[in-house]
Amino acid sequence: MRKIVNFNAGPGMLPESVLEKAKAEMLDWHQTGMSIMELGHRGADFKQVAEQSEADLRDLMNIPKNYHVLFLTGGASAQFAMVPMNLMSERKQADYVVTGVWSKKAIEEAARFGDVEMAAHLIYRNQLVALPEQADWNLRPDSDFVHYTPNETIDGVEFNWVPDTGDVPLVADMSSMILSRPIDVKQYGLIYAGAQKNMGQAGITIVIIRDDLVRKKPVFLTPTLYQYHTHVTNHSFYNTPPTYSWYITGLMLEWMKENGGVSGLYEINKRKAKKLYEVIDQSQGYYQCKVHPSCRSLMNVVFGLADDAMDDVFIAEAAKVGLVNLKGHRVVGGIRASIYNAMPESGVDALVAFMKVFQEKHPVKS
Amino acid sequence: MRKIVNFNAGPGMLPESVLEKAKAEMLDWHQTGMSIMELGHRGADFKQVAEQSEADLRDLMNIPKNYHVLFLTGGASAQFAMVPMNLMSERKQADYVVTGVWSKKAIEEAARFGDVEMAAHLIYRNQLVALPEQADWNLRPDSDFVHYTPNETIDGVEFNWVPDTGDVPLVADMSSMILSRPIDVKQYGLIYAGAQKNMGQAGITIVIIRDDLVRKKPVFLTPTLYQYHTHVTNHSFYNTPPTYSWYITGLMLEWMKENGGVSGLYEINKRKAKKLYEVIDQSQGYYQCKVHPSCRSLMNVVFGLADDAMDDVFIAEAAKVGLVNLKGHRVVGGIRASIYNAMPESGVDALVAFMKVFQEKHPVKS
Repeated sequence: MRKIVNFNAGPGMLPESVLEKAKAEMLDWHQTGMSIMELGHRGADFKQVAEQSEADLRDLMNIPKNYHVLFLTGGASAQFAMVPMNLMSERKQADYVVTGVWSKKAIEEAARFGDVEMAAHLIYRNQLVALPEQADWNLRPDSDFVHYTPNETIDGVEFNWVPDTGDVPLVADMSSMILSRPIDVKQYGLIYAGAQKNMGQAGITIVIIRDDLVRKKPVFLTPTLYQYHTHVTNHSFYNTPPTYSWYITGLMLEWMKENGGVSGLYEINKRKAKKLYEVIDQSQGYYQCKVHPSCRSLMNVVFGLADDAMDDVFIAEAAKVGLVNLKGHRVVGGIRASIYNAMPESGVDALVAFMKVFQEKHPVKS
Repeated sequence: MRKIVNFNAGPGMLPESVLEKAKAEMLDWHQTGMSIMELGHRGADFKQVAEQSEADLRDLMNIPKNYHVLFLTGGASAQFAMVPMNLMSERKQADYVVTGVWSKKAIEEAARFGDVEMAAHLIYRNQLVALPEQADWNLRPDSDFVHYTPNETIDGVEFNWVPDTGDVPLVADMSSMILSRPIDVKQYGLIYAGAQKNMGQAGITIVIIRDDLVRKKPVFLTPTLYQYHTHVTNHSFYNTPPTYSWYITGLMLEWMKENGGVSGLYEINKRKAKKLYEVIDQSQGYYQCKVHPSCRSLMNVVFGLADDAMDDVFIAEAAKVGLVNLKGHRVVGGIRASIYNAMPESGVDALVAFMKVFQEKHPVKS
């Protein structure tokens, strides 16, 4: 096992075996005598990488045939604009559920393009942050789509249920939870996710879009590369794709298939998160998580010490024993342990053990 | 030396030492115990990569202080839209010089946004393709900018002079020749280049833009990520950049500095190209280059056999001895040897030797 356990929120850690494979193949991919990053994107060799990765993703997520899978650039932030630019009809109307920093960014971009309303926002329940129940959402039946963020990386809030938006297409930013738990793709009109948290390195973004939502002519003057239609027609090869990022995602998908698939990883993810929330909840208030148990994230465990001033001591001492990048996002502060698919259970065990020792070593002053 | 010599037009080959370094650092970048692709983009470690690469590029190209250097995604094709979306004033008027397939793609995208005219196009001189002299260009003095493509990868045509557009900003797509010869950045308003030919892997694009051209509010409804202003303000960190592609570009820039800088590479590039054009010109018509000597590309040597039917035999036999990816672009056919900065002179020597042997082995039927 590697000595360093990396709890970074994104780019996140990758499995050692994936990095070892990338290392071994660096100067000679599949007996070509070349690196995969030196190969033409339109050649038979790279085509093999592209086709296998799409096949693996379709297999892992059980993606129906009437959905296209696209490999794009620009990250989720590009999707914040592409979604409204492509999915809005002449009506230009959409509803957004705002449950954290990322969904707020999504609505801010979308609001530049049309009549966008916040359908729901975070609530407090027993002084803890919680998700609003769908009965309380203000969804407009004639909206072009409903957008939400199933997992909020910065806030540590995650849906464990899927909104029912009837005939209005549901759009989800799955950047921080894709492939971490089983989902039914049919419940969504469009899914997007940057790869750098759960399925690779920064520089590539997956879009899964239902065929009937691919508008041939957007109602906005939209750059060619910002039209889903361009990428659907050209199978993500309209221009040179980010071939190496695509290759790394391919290795990650292969690794996931070899490690129990999504349902297998989900069981491990639940166990990993449970261990961390348990040590927090059993610390008699020494560690505190401000997220209601009904919507605690499996991917980003956001917490802090009752004594705020001790957060930095915790982070510094953890780093000394190889548990790194535990600092919470600058917007919310505190501590954040991001435990994506690639985080081994042993990494979480090491953090749990450290948390117990730290509490004993630094008792609350009375 | 590596056994395979890769003449691909893009993604292109990389120096062996760059790949060796990337390989060695794959699981442990600078004693962090992590891969560079696992590091947070806002951390001190990656910041070091970002700052050093910008400093190296500024040094190599002698970029004046009133120009911003941006590291973006989307390739040159994204710039085809970003340039008009950002540089057009309310007048929405621009002139394009069309000298090959790529400048044609650029004008097609720009024409969607405003009053775009073709200022000049390829001409024939002694039955060879040639560049139009500037005296014959139809430049409009009140245009927002003039766009041209200094090197056309597919056509093998390159400018060895810089257009004088007076007060109208000159925009150049340098994807296939950036850092291959000295240029004076001050002659340009904006320069852009995808990295995958001369300075790295696919997935990252460099933009060099003069400060006064950064429009705070584009006249079009422009996605936030398509506004230069966004990236200037955030130093290319508005959202997660493609960190690994950036790192590889950093290694390439470092390699260029260690290998004579731009002027040193230019001398080698001239020698490499001269050797190939000489064997073509001295073949008594066996090999033919349809580009006029005044504008033959130093980067992409496009030629063919007098007997078209022999092109494929040439390509197949070359591949057998490790000289690969010599097939011309599907639009023009024939043979293309792309010899970017990373192509060692010994690779060109091997091709020259092969060409001579091939001609002897397959004499013209009389």
